[in-house]
Amino acid sequence: MTTPTSLAVPTVTDPDVRAGYGVDESVGAVAPDDFEVVRARDLGDVVEVMRWAHETRTPVVPQGARSSLTGSSVAIDGGVVLNTEGLDSISTIDPLEGLAVVGPGVVNKGLKDAVAAEGLFYPPDPASSAFCTIGGNVATNAGGLCCVKYGVTGDYVRALQVVLPGGEVVRTGHRTAKGVAGLDLTGLFVGSEGTLGVVTEVTTRLLPAPDPALTVLATFDSLDAASVAIVALRRERHVPSLVELLDRAAVSAVQSLADYGFPRDCEAVLLVQSDRPDHTSEDVQRYAALLTDAGAAEVAVADDPTEADLLLAGRRALSPALEAKGPRYLEDVCVPVGRLTDLIRTGQGIAAAHGLEIVMAGHAGDGNLHPSIFFDAADPGSRRRAHQAFTEVVTAALAMGGTITGEHGVGTLKAPWLAQELGERELERQRAVKALFDPRGILNPGRVYWS
Amino acid sequence: MTTPTSLAVPTVTDPDVRAGYGVDESVGAVAPDDFEVVRARDLGDVVEVMRWAHETRTPVVPQGARSSLTGSSVAIDGGVVLNTEGLDSISTIDPLEGLAVVGPGVVNKGLKDAVAAEGLFYPPDPASSAFCTIGGNVATNAGGLCCVKYGVTGDYVRALQVVLPGGEVVRTGHRTAKGVAGLDLTGLFVGSEGTLGVVTEVTTRLLPAPDPALTVLATFDSLDAASVAIVALRRERHVPSLVELLDRAAVSAVQSLADYGFPRDCEAVLLVQSDRPDHTSEDVQRYAALLTDAGAAEVAVADDPTEADLLLAGRRALSPALEAKGPRYLEDVCVPVGRLTDLIRTGQGIAAAHGLEIVMAGHAGDGNLHPSIFFDAADPGSRRRAHQAFTEVVTAALAMGGTITGEHGVGTLKAPWLAQELGERELERQRAVKALFDPRGILNPGRVYWS
Repeated sequence: MTTPTSLAVPTVTDPDVRAGYGVDESVGAVAPDDFEVVRARDLGDVVEVMRWAHETRTPVVPQGARSSLTGSSVAIDGGVVLNTEGLDSISTIDPLEGLAVVGPGVVNKGLKDAVAAEGLFYPPDPASSAFCTIGGNVATNAGGLCCVKYGVTGDYVRALQVVLPGGEVVRTGHRTAKGVAGLDLTGLFVGSEGTLGVVTEVTTRLLPAPDPALTVLATFDSLDAASVAIVALRRERHVPSLVELLDRAAVSAVQSLADYGFPRDCEAVLLVQSDRPDHTSEDVQRYAALLTDAGAAEVAVADDPTEADLLLAGRRALSPALEAKGPRYLEDVCVPVGRLTDLIRTGQGIAAAHGLEIVMAGHAGDGNLHPSIFFDAADPGSRRRAHQAFTEVVTAALAMGGTITGEHGVGTLKAPWLAQELGERELERQRAVKALFDPRGILNPGRVYWS
Repeated sequence: MTTPTSLAVPTVTDPDVRAGYGVDESVGAVAPDDFEVVRARDLGDVVEVMRWAHETRTPVVPQGARSSLTGSSVAIDGGVVLNTEGLDSISTIDPLEGLAVVGPGVVNKGLKDAVAAEGLFYPPDPASSAFCTIGGNVATNAGGLCCVKYGVTGDYVRALQVVLPGGEVVRTGHRTAKGVAGLDLTGLFVGSEGTLGVVTEVTTRLLPAPDPALTVLATFDSLDAASVAIVALRRERHVPSLVELLDRAAVSAVQSLADYGFPRDCEAVLLVQSDRPDHTSEDVQRYAALLTDAGAAEVAVADDPTEADLLLAGRRALSPALEAKGPRYLEDVCVPVGRLTDLIRTGQGIAAAHGLEIVMAGHAGDGNLHPSIFFDAADPGSRRRAHQAFTEVVTAALAMGGTITGEHGVGTLKAPWLAQELGERELERQRAVKALFDPRGILNPGRVYWS
């Protein structure tokens, strides 16, 4: 391949370190043989790489903390990984205007903590908050646990600085609270998964800080009862700040790791939080009564934020618990909230038919489910069946009026289904939009819309 | 011109009625001699017109209630006005999923009232709420009085159905609470002012209904004191649902219409509301104390929603009061909140230098100001000076880090300044995006980005 060593931008030369930059957290991610890694230190570095890559028609994979679950930040053969973790300054936190200006390499939790020190709140909170970057959050329009009340990353992006192939630096959006001058290209870049440009600065909206959340935990002997509870919670005037569901298999996985106080024989656990200023305690008591009325077997309410964190610890332990179980296809479908328990039941049936283990958990308040379908990495047949089950879950979600991806993005993992959701003509249109920004197709080629 | 009379879509034949469809509420709007008006009854009508117009290269002006303030819905010579007021059904109000599906012709207040009957809330509330349509709101990404707490129209649009030139029917976005499959074209259509396609269906997100708002009214002897108050309100943990400002001239205009209880000798009036469930009374008392501390001369608090409406009546009377004063250029600049009173003072200075009357009012909590610059329609010199003053206010707002339009849109009124805000290269890019959707340039040609 053409190498970027002629550039002044630092490249990674140690082969082991380089290999680490070649993959993300998607299932079966494999680094190609031939790729380079450059670590941008500033806007100038990104411009230089984008100018060079455009001229030499070299594929570029924009990359943050490599926590993508869809393969969108895996290196491409003959290409360059453009890592922007080094652009990690928070240049502005403005309480009056309610905004922050940050580099794409700022870690989500780093931004949360920095603005919290000013009494402010940056809501978007993917489960990977401790290590994922704002740049990656923007690229995938990341969601998380807070979305039922606070929405997703895109709801907080006011303006972007983006470098296009060729090196042009573009500013979109506005710093002011409102602004409608021209087309909204900010929204177009949010969620574009590194296919249109490389984000080099993000202006985010901030909210006043809420109260530390309190938690209710409820266990259910049937999915139907959990479903009744979710529907009732959706009608709450004071929207919970978190509504998470774990099915029987998820509870079992978590309890296998350590005793988080979940009864292993329940069909579902719901975790519900309130962060409403001065009313967290009142809210969780009311949610507790609602959960009881819906048929919960047991309901526990945390009296203070420390206890509330303990109750949530089981949910937090889910990711490591599932990692420990072995390789899996991780789903991210989103369906109408009223269809969530249908989807769980359908998924359980699909897995059973293929003789596979499936674990269901997700953001119940949004209808956004993350089923994990496990397979035996040593058995190609098992893997094939898992992929088939994965396919059937996606298809079921679409049939329920859902989407193939609620918050992880398309990447390579979901690209085969995008045409099914959007239609070929719409895909053509999206490719045409991409071609305006990236006429030589150097940015994440082959991903998302198969461009 | 080629006429659409061969189509099955109803055209308006009465010349007087037709003339009414030729203009919107922008200053100096004049209907051209040669245009046709078609009133679509359903999706099929829109498809037919868009197919025909594309084939015959006939300019199309998509139109709702003609309340645009920028000329974006004025008829074009040799073109067709495609009015969608007839697509006015509310096909879905779904409390569980928190959404409504409506035609573009549904009146903003009609949607608010319909969802309120289900205990739900559609926040966007342009001052023209009683007659403007959702289609127009989407086209301009309309704001209003609620934005300081609730944001703008685009924050509530989940999905759109749009007809493109040529008649293709496109669906964007998703009905689910989350969804990141492919590029966000919904956001691209929102605020595109009828230049990309004709919206035929809107899926909006809904919130639980808040409490009826209570109001505080404060008068100030100096703009500086009002500025201190606005800054203090921005730091409130419980964000007010409304923060409106009127300057001395605005108060005087309102009091000329009737006695709304404003003292004529004050420099500024601030109106502040809370709609926070169970806390409206507590909030307005706290806001009242804050306003007093900031140096308000007088502070009045409404005890109940009826009184609260009375206190707001003066703000509502502003539009008719200003209409009654005569022709004016109406501004819509938005600046950082910290620069708002600078902008007011600058605007007053500009008007004084040109010997013109200027009235300042706007959404102080957002930094979104609506100065009115009055002129004598019989005196071309006066009109020229008013336009010059208008230009100078826009330029001042840009210099303060603001935007030429916070919520009204660009239309023809602000088109001359768009390049100054975005730059020529960005304008070229936006024209290229338009060309993807409207390759023959039939939709609102010559408007927004001068395409």
